[in-house]
Amino acid sequence: MDEFDLIGRYFTRPPRHTALGVGDDAALIDTSPGFQTVVATDMLVEGVHFFADADPRGIGHKSLAVNLSDLAAMGALPRQALLGIALPAADADWLAAFSGGFAALAARHDVDWVGGDTTRGPLNLCVTVLGAVPRGAALLRSGARPGDEIWVSGAPGLAALGLAQMRGDCTLGGAARAAALKRLHTPEPRVGLGIALRGIASACIDVSDGLLADLGHVLRASGTAAGGSPLAAEVDWAPLAAALAAAGGPWPDDAALLRNAVLAGGDDYELLFTAPPPRHAAVAGLVAQTGVPLSCIGRVDHAVPDASAPPIHLIEGDRRTPVANLGYRHFG
Amino acid sequence: MDEFDLIGRYFTRPPRHTALGVGDDAALIDTSPGFQTVVATDMLVEGVHFFADADPRGIGHKSLAVNLSDLAAMGALPRQALLGIALPAADADWLAAFSGGFAALAARHDVDWVGGDTTRGPLNLCVTVLGAVPRGAALLRSGARPGDEIWVSGAPGLAALGLAQMRGDCTLGGAARAAALKRLHTPEPRVGLGIALRGIASACIDVSDGLLADLGHVLRASGTAAGGSPLAAEVDWAPLAAALAAAGGPWPDDAALLRNAVLAGGDDYELLFTAPPPRHAAVAGLVAQTGVPLSCIGRVDHAVPDASAPPIHLIEGDRRTPVANLGYRHFG
Repeated sequence: MDEFDLIGRYFTRPPRHTALGVGDDAALIDTSPGFQTVVATDMLVEGVHFFADADPRGIGHKSLAVNLSDLAAMGALPRQALLGIALPAADADWLAAFSGGFAALAARHDVDWVGGDTTRGPLNLCVTVLGAVPRGAALLRSGARPGDEIWVSGAPGLAALGLAQMRGDCTLGGAARAAALKRLHTPEPRVGLGIALRGIASACIDVSDGLLADLGHVLRASGTAAGGSPLAAEVDWAPLAAALAAAGGPWPDDAALLRNAVLAGGDDYELLFTAPPPRHAAVAGLVAQTGVPLSCIGRVDHAVPDASAPPIHLIEGDRRTPVANLGYRHFG
Repeated sequence: MDEFDLIGRYFTRPPRHTALGVGDDAALIDTSPGFQTVVATDMLVEGVHFFADADPRGIGHKSLAVNLSDLAAMGALPRQALLGIALPAADADWLAAFSGGFAALAARHDVDWVGGDTTRGPLNLCVTVLGAVPRGAALLRSGARPGDEIWVSGAPGLAALGLAQMRGDCTLGGAARAAALKRLHTPEPRVGLGIALRGIASACIDVSDGLLADLGHVLRASGTAAGGSPLAAEVDWAPLAAALAAAGGPWPDDAALLRNAVLAGGDDYELLFTAPPPRHAAVAGLVAQTGVPLSCIGRVDHAVPDASAPPIHLIEGDRRTPVANLGYRHFG
């Protein structure tokens, strides 16, 4: 039983008066005739999401960033944040740095910090964010259709390479190490990109579990929404390798490590989205508008009847290999 | 540095586009011309808010109940809930009971369970609730005025007596024990009462830190809102003792234990509110309307110039004793 089984089995009830409940990056609530309120919660635990000795300013940044990333994946404008925090002790230096990192990112995105709860306990950060989206304009996981192109922002794999460096699994040079650790510790939520993708993207998710795993969520939700099996997809290695190269380097020669970082590494908080081919130029135009690199990395295909898992193939040169739906699992 | 200092020093920023930010039971967001969205977060930690071996169904109930209590204290109608949960392991029996307790209370209040986050870690439950209130109708902590009567629902002290029983600090008879443990483990959020108090109460808070401590929050917020020192108050012991007697018993003879449970025990999740004397009959009429016992337990008085802490006096017969602003503190 991994956390997806667990959520489906125990934590999912059909909503009675909510536009969209459990299962996407955030919930949608009809709060006014023109707009929907978008709300999401993410919890960060010491030893699971960050190291005990991590820079508290970075922890403050990241605890809000991963939540804003959920709003970005819905195309929402962030408005408010609440922080539930359990602390083993009240350490003034730690609190000043932590709250400074949180507040700086909030201010940069014009997010009001409006409440929360403070208690004693093993270090745990639970952030809730609220945002707004014009009614019907939210980017859902379930809108991908066969033929859509698959896009991703930035350079997936950077955060996983930073983690590999910290674990001693690879040794990066100075600039590469700095870029990878920056993405791991202080990811930038793609808020402006998410908003710009309204009306262009057919589906969107943020990459937190891993590229293939999160693509799998999109393919499953989209296939189910169309009343069938999960959709299939092809993913090209070349543009992913090019995106990583463009983000700096040099990266390790270890092909398995690189491939695992790019395809299965979580924690990048890039946006993975789909769009119909006629919107290719519109998407490409967003690079200049938002300043965020975008790569077209594959295509959505028709569902394979009776497939329980989304069938994803990786294209490398003239090789076409089925790949497992890799990704981080908290349980199981 | 207790958690109130900590929140004030590190976790409070002036909101830019939010009607009410940090400092009340919940935040208020203008989401439509007619209504405000009310949002609150409460975190529960194993060993702090519940025992490790507590009934998981009760933990599920309580984690939502304490949050609905924050909405009740604002006079809001609960609409949605999100659950962030850190679990040491995925235990199917525990999860079924926990989620059943959470979902049953949600269903009883017509609350949609719309999302959350599931992760591995020391057991921690962070619930966020959203509600709605007509614009301008929310019950704030800051509305009490000199001369207002002070009211409380139910029988404050019950939960603390349940805790004292569990710790071996007293031995209650069967019926008394059952009533006290029920209040401790499965408190009933006073949602209907909070809504009924709109337009009647001048200020409201839920009793989670302790009766005098939470009254202190009201007196401080109301004095500050009026541009001065915290307001003063007199609290009568007789109606509090009568409320406890009406809730069952027999209760322990230990006067110090009883007094501490009633005045400083947290975790009752009753509503403490103020109303002008001309509304006395309207408040008393709510007992029949809501089925919730209500007691008039004192009066708000004028601020004492230069008082840093709200001056509260306890009236017992013809004795008038200053009482410290007791209550639970997580730090310091």
